[in-house]
Amino acid sequence: MITMYELIEKTKHGAELSAEEINWFVAGYVSGSIPDYQASAWLMAVCFSSLSDKETTDLTMAMARSGDMMKPDLDKFCADKHSTGGVGDKTTLITAPIAASCGIYVPKMSGRGLGHTGGTIDKLEAIPGFNTSLSYSEFMSCVKNVGFAVAGQTGSLVPADKKLYALRNATATVDSIPLICSSIMSKKLATGADGIVLDVKVGDGAFMKTEEDAEKLARAMVSVGTLAGRKCSAVLTDMDQPLGMAVGNSLEVIEAIETLKGNAPADLREVSLTLAAEMLRLAGKGSFEECFAMAENALTSGKALETLRRMISAQGGDPNVTEDYSLFGKASHTLEVFSDKDGFINKISCEETGMISLKLGAGRKSKEASIDPTAGIIFDKKVGDFVHKGERLGTLYTSTECEINELGEEFRSIFRIEPSLSGEKKKIIKKVIKGIDI
Amino acid sequence: MITMYELIEKTKHGAELSAEEINWFVAGYVSGSIPDYQASAWLMAVCFSSLSDKETTDLTMAMARSGDMMKPDLDKFCADKHSTGGVGDKTTLITAPIAASCGIYVPKMSGRGLGHTGGTIDKLEAIPGFNTSLSYSEFMSCVKNVGFAVAGQTGSLVPADKKLYALRNATATVDSIPLICSSIMSKKLATGADGIVLDVKVGDGAFMKTEEDAEKLARAMVSVGTLAGRKCSAVLTDMDQPLGMAVGNSLEVIEAIETLKGNAPADLREVSLTLAAEMLRLAGKGSFEECFAMAENALTSGKALETLRRMISAQGGDPNVTEDYSLFGKASHTLEVFSDKDGFINKISCEETGMISLKLGAGRKSKEASIDPTAGIIFDKKVGDFVHKGERLGTLYTSTECEINELGEEFRSIFRIEPSLSGEKKKIIKKVIKGIDI
Repeated sequence: MITMYELIEKTKHGAELSAEEINWFVAGYVSGSIPDYQASAWLMAVCFSSLSDKETTDLTMAMARSGDMMKPDLDKFCADKHSTGGVGDKTTLITAPIAASCGIYVPKMSGRGLGHTGGTIDKLEAIPGFNTSLSYSEFMSCVKNVGFAVAGQTGSLVPADKKLYALRNATATVDSIPLICSSIMSKKLATGADGIVLDVKVGDGAFMKTEEDAEKLARAMVSVGTLAGRKCSAVLTDMDQPLGMAVGNSLEVIEAIETLKGNAPADLREVSLTLAAEMLRLAGKGSFEECFAMAENALTSGKALETLRRMISAQGGDPNVTEDYSLFGKASHTLEVFSDKDGFINKISCEETGMISLKLGAGRKSKEASIDPTAGIIFDKKVGDFVHKGERLGTLYTSTECEINELGEEFRSIFRIEPSLSGEKKKIIKKVIKGIDI
Repeated sequence: MITMYELIEKTKHGAELSAEEINWFVAGYVSGSIPDYQASAWLMAVCFSSLSDKETTDLTMAMARSGDMMKPDLDKFCADKHSTGGVGDKTTLITAPIAASCGIYVPKMSGRGLGHTGGTIDKLEAIPGFNTSLSYSEFMSCVKNVGFAVAGQTGSLVPADKKLYALRNATATVDSIPLICSSIMSKKLATGADGIVLDVKVGDGAFMKTEEDAEKLARAMVSVGTLAGRKCSAVLTDMDQPLGMAVGNSLEVIEAIETLKGNAPADLREVSLTLAAEMLRLAGKGSFEECFAMAENALTSGKALETLRRMISAQGGDPNVTEDYSLFGKASHTLEVFSDKDGFINKISCEETGMISLKLGAGRKSKEASIDPTAGIIFDKKVGDFVHKGERLGTLYTSTECEINELGEEFRSIFRIEPSLSGEKKKIIKKVIKGIDI
């Protein structure tokens, strides 16, 4: 007979749990026969002792199977993409229409954001009329007609993750690579995609602060995905400064549309095209270089923008937003912030950017809070740029009651401006980690 | 505002908690405002990150104060003694009457045993009529009249330990030195003794398997006791084989009586006199050597035995048991076990001895189980002895339904008998750790 006491003891002392033991734990925890206090002790033991690749895979599979496993019946390759989250990350709104316009399906189940800005769902809800609460058949019919769709996760998807994540959040057991891996991958596996591309952010604005940790997480996820029979790869991307120039919900949707029109900041363009190319590569559309060229073509030809318009329309939104940004509504307050000295920008703090964005109303402080879709930040300058005294650093937007002038001061202080450039220019794409046999 | 999340996070990353934070945790956990699942995550983090001496002292004090703090109003020095538990450990029944007969008070609150044999309470209950459920005033009046008394712990003593111990027991978080230390010392501090002598067992029959770990625990406890203003010392004693010749409840009481009559196995005599001498030394009765001589005299003069008889009588028991062992009742089954070879005994497994004792009925498998007071083992041979083939190794006793012949085979196998003596003779007293300024 398996007991939870023994499982905790084993993990605590670094012994490997069998698949049977892990399945027993996940089933027992979801059914309620294993109490929270034993589960949390085990989670803390995992934070210290870690899990082997095999245990991580077994845990992920057991979690994935704890609820509905979707098996989309589709005639084309079906790809999913996940980002570990960063500041200014709107790549889904760009990569999904690119990939879809190149002939693969991208059924994207997404969560709401908790923190500095909303999640993809919240961003899309900045579009008037846009509906993210689709039934599974509505969702799949949108995928079949347009090539991609974005909807909120349903309650019956991976209940084990829901319950474990809430417990981890309350017990300071979030920062464990096998636990993060199983949480992300169980959802990806349950949605039934043939291929999964993971965007693992690295830097002070990311969960993984070092390239070493990010690579560990990426390898764990790729390994689990591959062992579970999916095509899988991960891209390590820089998050030492916000991605692109816009942070906020409607502001990020607008930046995504501009990117699809060819007017992209270099970093955002490169990350988006790389992720889209990886999705196409997993689908067998050619080498990475061929797929990258295909993605670029979808962008320059306007095909991807057209796909986004069709998707907005299919999900009840007004497709004219791609031409008339005033449809998003305007922030009631704006504040331009100017530099008080000359110099090179050597650093823009991601964490502080996120905090300011949250205070402007772009994010949620608690699960129940609502989001101000007009709130956010537009940067004029990025790391490596030279700025003159009196030149504009960026603009803050909000329709929420807040101390905007104080936030302006805070905003100025997130830029480290120095007489000379420090360090080398960081690469936006740090590494691509490919699954086995792809 | 303090949050449990932050406390867990701090301990997990090795940061020191303030006294305020620890007090907040203990109060919140006892009141129920902090849920079990957060407490168990913290306990597991403590198992990995440990606690500083200051944190351990703060935790111990907070736990001690979670219930009634006794302040015995006594005219003589009041000493307490605690053993970390081993096989055949009946030293309380010997040291307490010795110390009491030398002019100090020993009010002993004791728990019931869970495991191979009963606790001190269970052992004393093998005496017909003996009552361990005393009210506090009955208990103190017995202490004042006789010099010592033994009673069960009351529910209002250290509720924090009760609740935390149950949680540790369910979450594999027992084996942490600061947690063991706070559990033991909170109870010792709450009972209000002026001096505390700790018997820390080392060896395969003890919780601490190595002298290094035992010393760590001993130093932690002595430090906490001293910081809390008590006189405190610890004695590290060997538990690589059972202590004395008897294991079981009435069998151990009889061996304690025999010891007080001067018929003691050498190891039991030495441990008992050392512990009693330390209690007297803490009371300021002289140097260790003077106190040891005083303890020896109490034994040889019969004063200590007389004190035990008066205590049995004061707690409702029949004092004639000290002369007529048949009053304990007889085991319905006995089995003599003989050696199947010649040789030196190089090892007697404590753990196996405990298991056999439990199966004979001397211990409890669960909290609700009852104890067979007649059950147990009498050894004829100890480590270092030579045994001839066919010579008796020991006798098993039980009035409980069990496979006594099978247990006899098991019993024979706990002796490692070899052609020559291996290793050096182990010292029974390994080390004495004295508190500061004593």
